Amino acid sequence: MAKLKFGLVGGGYGAFIGQVHRMAAELDGLAELVCGVFSSEPERSQQAGTELYHLPSARAYPTTSAMFAAEQQLLDHERMDFVIIATPNHMHYPIACEALRSGFHVMCDKPATHSLAEALALQEQIQQSDRIFGLTHNYTGYAMVREARELVRSGALGVVRRVNCEYLQGWLAQAEDDNKQAQWRTDPQRAGAAGCFGDIGSHAENLVSFVTDLEIEQLCADLTTFVDGRALDDDGNVLLRLQGGAKGVISASQIALGKENDLRLQVFGTKASLEWQQADANSLTVRSADKPLAVHRSGWAGTTSQAIAATRIPAGHPEGYIEAFAQLYRDFCLTLLGNDSAALFPTIADGVRGMRFIERVVASSKAGGQWLSFVE
Amino acid sequence: MAKLKFGLVGGGYGAFIGQVHRMAAELDGLAELVCGVFSSEPERSQQAGTELYHLPSARAYPTTSAMFAAEQQLLDHERMDFVIIATPNHMHYPIACEALRSGFHVMCDKPATHSLAEALALQEQIQQSDRIFGLTHNYTGYAMVREARELVRSGALGVVRRVNCEYLQGWLAQAEDDNKQAQWRTDPQRAGAAGCFGDIGSHAENLVSFVTDLEIEQLCADLTTFVDGRALDDDGNVLLRLQGGAKGVISASQIALGKENDLRLQVFGTKASLEWQQADANSLTVRSADKPLAVHRSGWAGTTSQAIAATRIPAGHPEGYIEAFAQLYRDFCLTLLGNDSAALFPTIADGVRGMRFIERVVASSKAGGQWLSFVE
Amino acid sequence: MAKLKFGLVGGGYGAFIGQVHRMAAELDGLAELVCGVFSSEPERSQQAGTELYHLPSARAYPTTSAMFAAEQQLLDHERMDFVIIATPNHMHYPIACEALRSGFHVMCDKPATHSLAEALALQEQIQQSDRIFGLTHNYTGYAMVREARELVRSGALGVVRRVNCEYLQGWLAQAEDDNKQAQWRTDPQRAGAAGCFGDIGSHAENLVSFVTDLEIEQLCADLTTFVDGRALDDDGNVLLRLQGGAKGVISASQIALGKENDLRLQVFGTKASLEWQQADANSLTVRSADKPLAVHRSGWAGTTSQAIAATRIPAGHPEGYIEAFAQLYRDFCLTLLGNDSAALFPTIADGVRGMRFIERVVASSKAGGQWLSFVE
Amino acid sequence: MAKLKFGLVGGGYGAFIGQVHRMAAELDGLAELVCGVFSSEPERSQQAGTELYHLPSARAYPTTSAMFAAEQQLLDHERMDFVIIATPNHMHYPIACEALRSGFHVMCDKPATHSLAEALALQEQIQQSDRIFGLTHNYTGYAMVREARELVRSGALGVVRRVNCEYLQGWLAQAEDDNKQAQWRTDPQRAGAAGCFGDIGSHAENLVSFVTDLEIEQLCADLTTFVDGRALDDDGNVLLRLQGGAKGVISASQIALGKENDLRLQVFGTKASLEWQQADANSLTVRSADKPLAVHRSGWAGTTSQAIAATRIPAGHPEGYIEAFAQLYRDFCLTLLGNDSAALFPTIADGVRGMRFIERVVASSKAGGQWLSFVE
Repeated sequence: MAKLKFGLVGGGYGAFIGQVHRMAAELDGLAELVCGVFSSEPERSQQAGTELYHLPSARAYPTTSAMFAAEQQLLDHERMDFVIIATPNHMHYPIACEALRSGFHVMCDKPATHSLAEALALQEQIQQSDRIFGLTHNYTGYAMVREARELVRSGALGVVRRVNCEYLQGWLAQAEDDNKQAQWRTDPQRAGAAGCFGDIGSHAENLVSFVTDLEIEQLCADLTTFVDGRALDDDGNVLLRLQGGAKGVISASQIALGKENDLRLQVFGTKASLEWQQADANSLTVRSADKPLAVHRSGWAGTTSQAIAATRIPAGHPEGYIEAFAQLYRDFCLTLLGNDSAALFPTIADGVRGMRFIERVVASSKAGGQWLSFVE
Repeated sequence: MAKLKFGLVGGGYGAFIGQVHRMAAELDGLAELVCGVFSSEPERSQQAGTELYHLPSARAYPTTSAMFAAEQQLLDHERMDFVIIATPNHMHYPIACEALRSGFHVMCDKPATHSLAEALALQEQIQQSDRIFGLTHNYTGYAMVREARELVRSGALGVVRRVNCEYLQGWLAQAEDDNKQAQWRTDPQRAGAAGCFGDIGSHAENLVSFVTDLEIEQLCADLTTFVDGRALDDDGNVLLRLQGGAKGVISASQIALGKENDLRLQVFGTKASLEWQQADANSLTVRSADKPLAVHRSGWAGTTSQAIAATRIPAGHPEGYIEAFAQLYRDFCLTLLGNDSAALFPTIADGVRGMRFIERVVASSKAGGQWLSFVE
Repeated sequence: MAKLKFGLVGGGYGAFIGQVHRMAAELDGLAELVCGVFSSEPERSQQAGTELYHLPSARAYPTTSAMFAAEQQLLDHERMDFVIIATPNHMHYPIACEALRSGFHVMCDKPATHSLAEALALQEQIQQSDRIFGLTHNYTGYAMVREARELVRSGALGVVRRVNCEYLQGWLAQAEDDNKQAQWRTDPQRAGAAGCFGDIGSHAENLVSFVTDLEIEQLCADLTTFVDGRALDDDGNVLLRLQGGAKGVISASQIALGKENDLRLQVFGTKASLEWQQADANSLTVRSADKPLAVHRSGWAGTTSQAIAATRIPAGHPEGYIEAFAQLYRDFCLTLLGNDSAALFPTIADGVRGMRFIERVVASSKAGGQWLSFVE
Repeated sequence: MAKLKFGLVGGGYGAFIGQVHRMAAELDGLAELVCGVFSSEPERSQQAGTELYHLPSARAYPTTSAMFAAEQQLLDHERMDFVIIATPNHMHYPIACEALRSGFHVMCDKPATHSLAEALALQEQIQQSDRIFGLTHNYTGYAMVREARELVRSGALGVVRRVNCEYLQGWLAQAEDDNKQAQWRTDPQRAGAAGCFGDIGSHAENLVSFVTDLEIEQLCADLTTFVDGRALDDDGNVLLRLQGGAKGVISASQIALGKENDLRLQVFGTKASLEWQQADANSLTVRSADKPLAVHRSGWAGTTSQAIAATRIPAGHPEGYIEAFAQLYRDFCLTLLGNDSAALFPTIADGVRGMRFIERVVASSKAGGQWLSFVE
């Protein structure tokens, strides 16, 4: 059985997340990069393809349309099977549509699209196609995040009452005029309606949903733009009223000076509670009223089958961000290969919900911090 | 020079905080317990005084009025100098007034009173007296909390932009019908307008104020009562808009199952940020953009004079809750002894602000989570 | 019932541990300081007694013999019940003997004496007296250290195979000529045969013994004096062969630059293992092969009765060094009061074993790191 | 520029480390697996090659000699460039020799060989060849381990005085008769003279050497076999006397029940000290006498160029075991590609020193724990 083949859009010079997608997609030996478009400038795309990715120049395409057209012509065992979209947000929708129309599966970076309207339109296109669409909310790939989800689903927590999720970064605490990564994330034309909440608030929402499976009923948001001249929010706090009476808070910031990628989730139920943070990603703290605190560890005894399935190496040998990201690709590839029994990668349903979250948060904040229903 | 002498109201059988006050007040050798009222039942008060506190029975008084009257008659070197009020909230105001009228200084447990109106009235009485009134928001006594305050005041953080403060407990996750401590805290007659937010949300507000010195301009609160039949909130989240444009979140819960006394503060400025948590009370994490993370430690090099003044023993020998509590008593006693240069104990100003916080939080929540000005 | 009364020898100007003894002995309200000798210079003793300890000048004695003579004359309800010896090591033996002969119980700082010979002589004197002698190996007072001991004794660890104990400090990394605390600890006349191993290596040995109850059969030591001109060891490592085939390592250092008071114990058995460190003193990590890691916490559910008995306040409100120290005094006082059911304070047996450890470690190291039997 | 090509020996069904080598070698996109021998049974080798590694069956070779012969015949752009040896220890030497003779570079798992004699012989062969030989002491690939090394080399620590290195595992605490990984590691025929010290004690020695660059002058070892019937040590402690007067301890165990892969290094100098542990691999704690503790973090400001070069993703997105392992392959590949300016991968010099360490530790222990010179 040969490996699956994929193309990559994005990930050129000065990019960060493109190489992560490549490493993640290839890690488990199920797939290999065979082509791509690495810049909106045709010449730079070809140069990056050969220099950064060691591709033959013929498959470092100048444009996505050239790529899709050319790859369609190739024989089965040569042609790419899926395309990874790792571009700024505004390009997700057109490229995803083009890929689906051309018959390719899609793995897309988050948030799904530039707007909720686009996400809904994309959802429709996906439903009408027979292609698979995955969304890389990569934190859901950590073994201990999956452990958290399983513990909630198993009833070990009882009824969930409270959820706190923080995602705090500090890298945009000052205006960073010459940082390519910063530029597009703070530009409404490329990022969408929200800055910080599009980029990382959406991860927090996804994590809350993935682990608790509770729908947001109402929210109240207070977003801020702290850096002068910035067009989008760089910080915010959102109160949540969740299905069944649970309450929550999501805090996200890109001006939390000194914070790295501090993603932290706490879920409190009537029987037990959970705490996880990316800084100690291989641990999940489980608390209850009548027992000593327990720490579930990746690869150690006493974890759920979902956690075991997402662990590659023995306990105490840490698995990190790339491995978690790779878990989504593993699930995605196994699904493409026909084995989708346990595939947990996020899909367009997450994408639509995430885009709705972004738009409702922005609307609530613009209304002065009013409580809004999640679905109008 | 003899020690100062104090009486204690509260702290009888089944109490918790009374003994803590006694240990804290005596720790530094500046004061000693000489009398008290340890129950609202005269006989039990006398029994507790001799059994629990080894007092002569003559000074285990049946009532506070008996105590104040008798102590006034004693000679200077025998009479108590101050009284500690460690009763349920509704008794703070009448006892404090009685003490002040009788010429005794007062150290009072928090929150200051049963209502904002009482706090304002008490403030007036204090202003008209020449007695000292202290309020035991004890977390402000930790050396590393004082370090945090000093770093903010020194400008080391630049302008504060964001504050997160969580105080999460789980001990009231179920109805605890036979727990004396739980009973009065969930009874509006004794606790006041708020349950969780009166008991510990008020500590969080005080900590934010102590460290940042920023006034709250507006707040939006969502309180919940999760346990059936409980009359007061047992959980809540509050969004803050602070003076100068900073934003904040206070989360407090007594149904956060498995949480002990998880008090955690984060303050983010334009130059640096701070993180402190009670679970690691002797450390203060200081982050900035251009240097490795620093951990300031109680008793170690590189801390401020305020932190040094609040540290008793060499670094690495942890100081805990009692020592922090004792720091307020040390400041208070030194003030009574005429040396008030560095006294940092909370006063009625904190008490009034704290009661206003409680009342505004309750009002916002009752209005469906509306934004309210802090001062009407 | 009145409090017990005690005198203090040591703890004058520039001292550290004397005040800790006083705070610890008084913390639980069972005892109070009534007299003492606070300097070898009579005038300074009297000054310190009144200034530092607020004693009447009559009971700030010029010498220990004056104190013992005068206190013997007092009435029962005024006379001290026990004396605390908090002097440099060479004074422990003569003062303890004097106290016992004068009819006073003794609480003595560690190590027990200046030499093994003295410790054996003291043991004999104690056996011939009806007075109680306690030794303040204070780390045995931590609730989670007692939890560790109980878990070992209960069989929860199975058979102990390996023990690691580190006590690392950095405060003597340079010659500190003007530091009173450093001076006597590095002076063989006052400290004894060992420097670092007398001061803190002995604590490590005591902790290993307290928790595992295993006798040392053989040891091999390699001590070092890193700082030029210092007369005693300031660092060392010792291999242990313990009763029943277990193995161990004790590392102690006072030149481990940047280390505070890093005391860390690991015990590995056939069924489970334990890890405790002073920096996180309220936690005890328990590991086993087939379950998630558990963290036993002071004051939380699932701990042993010995741990509960050594805990004063609710979980999450940290108890520190002074509280642990106070636990020994609580046990000691309860024993004096006739309730010795659960008294766990170290005695002269620990003192003799500890002095033997110091002497054998020094002998092994002087012999080039030879293996020696623990008992000659 | 095409990727480098490699073959893999080992890594078949039930193996662990083979896939790790494959993931690590491919992670940075510099190399790809093209062939291998995955079992000593020819048929299983072919099956594993196609099933586990998606190789064409022609390049899943039955034997290493078949592989080397066939690959030599291929054209430059098809032929493997290097071979990875991931077999039990006794096969390292013959396969490495065969590879070198056949003109292939070698990346070999540790320890280098089955005996010191073999290591010395291999060293000679390597010196006589023009091929590159690397040894996967993978912990040297962590960014923060490299940071530690750089800080020592820069003089930031002053003179090193003390080193503590622990590598504690618990997975062999019981006899595990049916575990393939356990079987060969406890079999002298396949593992060599030492069990635990061959498998992980050697990693500890390498880490000490890599970071401090200090030679061992003398050592004293006490090894133990705790599990009945086991032929090799499963636990041990070693005292070290290092070049320049520094002292050290290495503890390694595979019966430290409940421990995962707890590798922890502490280095104390005259100016500063370091602490690193695999459980928190992206942090390096730096302590000094006159400043707050600093935590250097992978990807954050204030780290050395060597650490930056070994970091792929932004701070706070943890990099783990596979990424560290991959760092050695990156260095190795860059060296093969002609850019060896900063290559830090271990070589046969480490292999020879490591085998000498194993043999001297065993000799010292067999002599009852005698001090031995490191080089006879």
